[in-house]
Amino acid sequence: MKRIALLLVAIAAVAGVVTFTARASGRADEDAVPIFGIKIPPGYRDWKLISVAHEEGNLNDLRAILGNDAAIMAYREGKLPFPDGTIIARLAWSYVPSEENNKVFGRRQSFVPGPQPDWYLQLMVKDSRKYAATGGWGFAQFDKSGKPADEAMLKTCFPCHEPVKARDFVFTHYAP
Amino acid sequence: MKRIALLLVAIAAVAGVVTFTARASGRADEDAVPIFGIKIPPGYRDWKLISVAHEEGNLNDLRAILGNDAAIMAYREGKLPFPDGTIIARLAWSYVPSEENNKVFGRRQSFVPGPQPDWYLQLMVKDSRKYAATGGWGFAQFDKSGKPADEAMLKTCFPCHEPVKARDFVFTHYAP
Repeated sequence: MKRIALLLVAIAAVAGVVTFTARASGRADEDAVPIFGIKIPPGYRDWKLISVAHEEGNLNDLRAILGNDAAIMAYREGKLPFPDGTIIARLAWSYVPSEENNKVFGRRQSFVPGPQPDWYLQLMVKDSRKYAATGGWGFAQFDKSGKPADEAMLKTCFPCHEPVKARDFVFTHYAP
Repeated sequence: MKRIALLLVAIAAVAGVVTFTARASGRADEDAVPIFGIKIPPGYRDWKLISVAHEEGNLNDLRAILGNDAAIMAYREGKLPFPDGTIIARLAWSYVPSEENNKVFGRRQSFVPGPQPDWYLQLMVKDSRKYAATGGWGFAQFDKSGKPADEAMLKTCFPCHEPVKARDFVFTHYAP
């Protein structure tokens, strides 16, 4: 039953991508990223929460990691590798102090999302046959305007994810 | 026979775990908080993302702010005050460096959710008549085991939210 449910989710995910591509509304006209041919999936901002994070250094962002139903189901079942149809979306915002919150708290303690950086949206799409050369994952990155990253940038994705092969190349754990 | 008996014991054990897990995640039987009489709403972990944040200082947490459909709709329409039925859920995790991520990045840059603190779950529930004395909002807090905060703690909620009356007493903005 679980396998059938997962299969249905995978089919629904693929159907969703196809439907989205066919539709002319929203971001349907946006380009796909090079190499992996991935477009922005419709409704990703409504997906369920996997986790949150803060990256310091050059990135200096606050991020939310969301997943489609296949991703969430796999995470909650502790299932590795992730099934085909899984999509993990990483949204990032610049890391800024909230002046209005801090005024209430009486100190600089609250950090919130500021403007979206150029790496606003990153996606991992599981298709074990199509993306066999990169661990079964396709990678994508879009800026806040929906503009896809270039080939040089996309070539850096898999080498960075390769060290976490034991976690099916995914950095993010599910936040309990 | 012994093998069958052992198998039956094993099945019973698994069934027991499943039943327990279902109950624990349901949480519908948990106690309500004092003053406001709010229980943990079922399925809140599946709600859509409003925003994320990091609080420094004594809290030192990473947080996700999720909303039920009424909350999300009001946020996206920029509608204030929030309508009755709105529930905003703030989930918090302790703020810890990710050693496994940092090993890949070659420096201490990645901060992720650690264990849930005592203030794991906070809720704001809008009912303009029932909670007229506190700006139309009921407040609740639960620890990771689902235990509600006491009366003294709950009395501190509204005074802290009062300075952001212009935002209908809600600190969190919607992350674009």
